Amino acid sequence: MEGTRGQVTGIDDLPVRDELRGKSPYGAPQLDVPVRLNTNENPYPLPDALVERIAERVREAARHLNRYPDRDAVELRTRLAAYLTDTTGHEVSLADVWAANGSNEVIQQLLQTFGGPGRTAIGFEPSYSMHALIARGTGTGWISGPRRPDFTIDLPAAERALAEHRPDVVFITTPNNPTGNAVPRETVLALYDAAQAVKPTMVIVDEAYVEFSHGASLLPLIEGRPHLVVSRTMSKAFGAAGLRLGYLAAHPAVVDAVQLVRLPYHLSAVTQATALAALEHTDTLLGYVEQLKSERDRLVAELRAIGYRVVESDANFVQFGLFDGAGGSHAAWLRILDRGVLVRDNGIPGWLRVSAGTPAENDAFLDAVRELKKEQSA
Amino acid sequence: MEGTRGQVTGIDDLPVRDELRGKSPYGAPQLDVPVRLNTNENPYPLPDALVERIAERVREAARHLNRYPDRDAVELRTRLAAYLTDTTGHEVSLADVWAANGSNEVIQQLLQTFGGPGRTAIGFEPSYSMHALIARGTGTGWISGPRRPDFTIDLPAAERALAEHRPDVVFITTPNNPTGNAVPRETVLALYDAAQAVKPTMVIVDEAYVEFSHGASLLPLIEGRPHLVVSRTMSKAFGAAGLRLGYLAAHPAVVDAVQLVRLPYHLSAVTQATALAALEHTDTLLGYVEQLKSERDRLVAELRAIGYRVVESDANFVQFGLFDGAGGSHAAWLRILDRGVLVRDNGIPGWLRVSAGTPAENDAFLDAVRELKKEQSA
Repeated sequence: MEGTRGQVTGIDDLPVRDELRGKSPYGAPQLDVPVRLNTNENPYPLPDALVERIAERVREAARHLNRYPDRDAVELRTRLAAYLTDTTGHEVSLADVWAANGSNEVIQQLLQTFGGPGRTAIGFEPSYSMHALIARGTGTGWISGPRRPDFTIDLPAAERALAEHRPDVVFITTPNNPTGNAVPRETVLALYDAAQAVKPTMVIVDEAYVEFSHGASLLPLIEGRPHLVVSRTMSKAFGAAGLRLGYLAAHPAVVDAVQLVRLPYHLSAVTQATALAALEHTDTLLGYVEQLKSERDRLVAELRAIGYRVVESDANFVQFGLFDGAGGSHAAWLRILDRGVLVRDNGIPGWLRVSAGTPAENDAFLDAVRELKKEQSA
Repeated sequence: MEGTRGQVTGIDDLPVRDELRGKSPYGAPQLDVPVRLNTNENPYPLPDALVERIAERVREAARHLNRYPDRDAVELRTRLAAYLTDTTGHEVSLADVWAANGSNEVIQQLLQTFGGPGRTAIGFEPSYSMHALIARGTGTGWISGPRRPDFTIDLPAAERALAEHRPDVVFITTPNNPTGNAVPRETVLALYDAAQAVKPTMVIVDEAYVEFSHGASLLPLIEGRPHLVVSRTMSKAFGAAGLRLGYLAAHPAVVDAVQLVRLPYHLSAVTQATALAALEHTDTLLGYVEQLKSERDRLVAELRAIGYRVVESDANFVQFGLFDGAGGSHAAWLRILDRGVLVRDNGIPGWLRVSAGTPAENDAFLDAVRELKKEQSA
């Protein structure tokens, strides 16, 4: 009998849920390598003035740390709303905004509210793989929707998938991760309408990388579309992956609804204080975004000049290939790693993903893939 | 048809899960009152030296905030393990410890791993009401197990409930919240064995308040019991409710298992830095715990002297009553609030709960309930 002493040696000896058996935790390899361009982090450390401001605001918050934090994060949500209003031109207020520990937690709360057991969510894959994993973690059925070989969304095929599977939640990642391409506004609108035509369906537009886009945010679409949610993060454009601050904008009823499943006091006082400090330095941080966009464009151009195929990118990363020789993309990943540069193998045959780093990091990467191309052509 | 523009005015117009309809978010009223003794917060602000240390460690962490945090929180878990070893005498190491954003998230991860759709959890109520709410949020069926009128666990009745309902997860809160009484070690052992006799069952011993107990932690029971999990928090004894740092100790396989459902990088770099700073000041913080224990004992004695019934308390709060007159405990809660003291009405007929505050806060509370008793006797 299981449960007696000393017989458990690993996960599979425990009464874990069946769907977790044999699985591994999500996460890119964390390797100690000179140039890490694998997790779409912003390569620019926060400016000194902001580091000091964070220390100052956290010191103030720590004086009251014996008390629970503001459960509703009112000041933070108000400031996030102001940031969205300023950068999109669409007026957003406290009641339209919710925040959590990373956009992953935002998505988890949305799936706990609108997905869950007996319900399904669809994403058009390849896309951000956490959508499917969080669906599994919340008991939501997952439907892998189609994309074209060039990684754009095939609207007629997508509409057929919506009609056939009748999902409760639709994910649209734009710019898409890991491919980098943005989804056109009219495609999002068509998918929203197609989903609603079947039944009331929440459509989550994941804009984690939108600040790097050539185009505009789709946030204004929430107006008059109560089933549309735009999710965002401070990990990328704000250079604060370590902060774990995700947020969403939507109809106030959606914000009310996720509060039925959020863990009370989910956002710590130090997280709120740090995020508020970062929001005071938006202009500086968005300056780095401009640098990264031009580096991203340089990566696209140089990779093409070397002879790689590249997916058009609206993000701070570039998907490139094709590696169809011996060992495919994994072999290429290893050869690039041999040269001290860590990129990401997302398991998409033939393709790898590189995050835009500093100019020096990108040079190191370009040198590595130039060498690789020579080897492979030799 | 739902989903067309402008027709959504509230939660119930959205396609939320049926079990969420008509519900309200969890949380005690946050009222601006001179004496707040309603959420079992530690009344002592962190000492200045610790506030400075937090600012220092967070400043250091902020310099790398553009990078994701340590996904496995190795340094923090190692320090938490050392704290547990030091305070319980039972050797615990990194591999036995996991941490998350508050013990609520620890419990959510445990239920996602070992509970979830098609599975059930049992708690002996009244107890910490978040156990049932997190069960709902994770799609886990909830069974309300019995307690005696004096709020102790009736072992034969509990064993019958285990045999009848065959739960997958058993919660034992000790000291219990909101009643304050500890569960005897032998009861926990008997429940563990009774649960395992039915089928492999995870038993979660919630020790959020154990540092305030007259007795010892049950943590050593994890030895040779791979289905026993002890959950803890830094919110109470460490005076850091605003930090949101919960943790667990268990067999390393349990720690491995929850990593299958944890959101990657769930613990921010600022949370890890702040918790590490607090752990450097354990001795000072545990000094406050001693003061609170003696204040708790004073509250128990004084409440009895005034003529109230009091449940024996091993926590930093006291459940007292009985208010069976007109309006019952809610009316009494309001009368105490009129005198500027906020206590907690947990919905247990006839009873209220008061957190141990500073001596001055407790005096204000005792004055208020002394007056109340006079009124009610008049």
